[in-house]
Amino acid sequence: MTKLRVNAFSISIDGYGAGPDQSLDNPLGVGGQGLFEWFFPTRTFLSHIGKDGGTTGPDDEIAARSFDNLGGPWARHESWKGWWGDNPPYHVPVFVLTHHAREPLEMAGGTTFHFVTEGIHAALEQAKVAAKGKDIRIGGGAATVRQYLKAGLIDSLHLALSPVLMGSGEALFAGIDMKGLGYRCTERTATQAAMHVTLAK
Amino acid sequence: MTKLRVNAFSISIDGYGAGPDQSLDNPLGVGGQGLFEWFFPTRTFLSHIGKDGGTTGPDDEIAARSFDNLGGPWARHESWKGWWGDNPPYHVPVFVLTHHAREPLEMAGGTTFHFVTEGIHAALEQAKVAAKGKDIRIGGGAATVRQYLKAGLIDSLHLALSPVLMGSGEALFAGIDMKGLGYRCTERTATQAAMHVTLAK
Repeated sequence: MTKLRVNAFSISIDGYGAGPDQSLDNPLGVGGQGLFEWFFPTRTFLSHIGKDGGTTGPDDEIAARSFDNLGGPWARHESWKGWWGDNPPYHVPVFVLTHHAREPLEMAGGTTFHFVTEGIHAALEQAKVAAKGKDIRIGGGAATVRQYLKAGLIDSLHLALSPVLMGSGEALFAGIDMKGLGYRCTERTATQAAMHVTLAK
Repeated sequence: MTKLRVNAFSISIDGYGAGPDQSLDNPLGVGGQGLFEWFFPTRTFLSHIGKDGGTTGPDDEIAARSFDNLGGPWARHESWKGWWGDNPPYHVPVFVLTHHAREPLEMAGGTTFHFVTEGIHAALEQAKVAAKGKDIRIGGGAATVRQYLKAGLIDSLHLALSPVLMGSGEALFAGIDMKGLGYRCTERTATQAAMHVTLAK
């Protein structure tokens, strides 16, 4: 059965999923690279950008799992062609939450961006159809994840708590009672680069 | 020179330093015990409650450091004799932030509770005099730590990020721009029980 997952979502010690002043040129925000210090050196990430080598071990296993068994991740942007170039690493249909209707954008390697203007429930329904029983990953930032969390729609949320401070931004859990929503920590793995936890119902 | 430290302060994945519904009977709040799963099994903690055994390793070293070189921790409570019985583990003067003036309370083992009604700066000044050049530890909860953080008075903050959810309460960093205040992560140690980080200027 299709599950809605958030995979390898990095947050800072102070709870932010990106640095301040995010922009199209700097989607991770100021200092946001630090959130992914556990991820960038992994073999999984390097192979996705066409490079050899990289670390193996728990960080890499979690990075790899974040790409497994996925039928339809999506993201949310106003005006957007992705940050991955012509051949994004998704290789599946991607449903982009936006306020601006736009024709589907077919990329190389099986990724097609579909732009959804009817909100989070509509995007989820379309992704479910495309997923054909596989899992769906939310690829968006904190704002998107928060909307789906509040609506009680996320089955599994993997977080990488990174030992950095972001200072400001949108805190992932601000005003959301994760325990009250029924989540608990079902899995944890500590590395020197991050504390990985899975929150699920 | 005296430094103002917060040691071994545990926070949850969602950023809380205690569970909801804290009370005198249940100072850690509902589910708050989970924040200290890294601490309770350590040899340091067990010896402080008069028991033998316990784990050694990074968690224990950090627990031990939290008691080292301290000249005057303090806490904040309205009506209070401590939770440690007649011989608290402080063995130093403790300055308790309160709204109710009260005579000093002398306990066994060198701990004296002094009750300070003039606020955080007055408590810090009195603790500095008592500390005679040693460090001062803030022993209070999130509300106290937040007041001193906002005032820019904390030199070093050790956090144990515990893999549990609390759901609600007072989030330690809500509305505080730690990066803007000049803090950065200066030290980190991951164990299977917690991610320990030190934030300092």
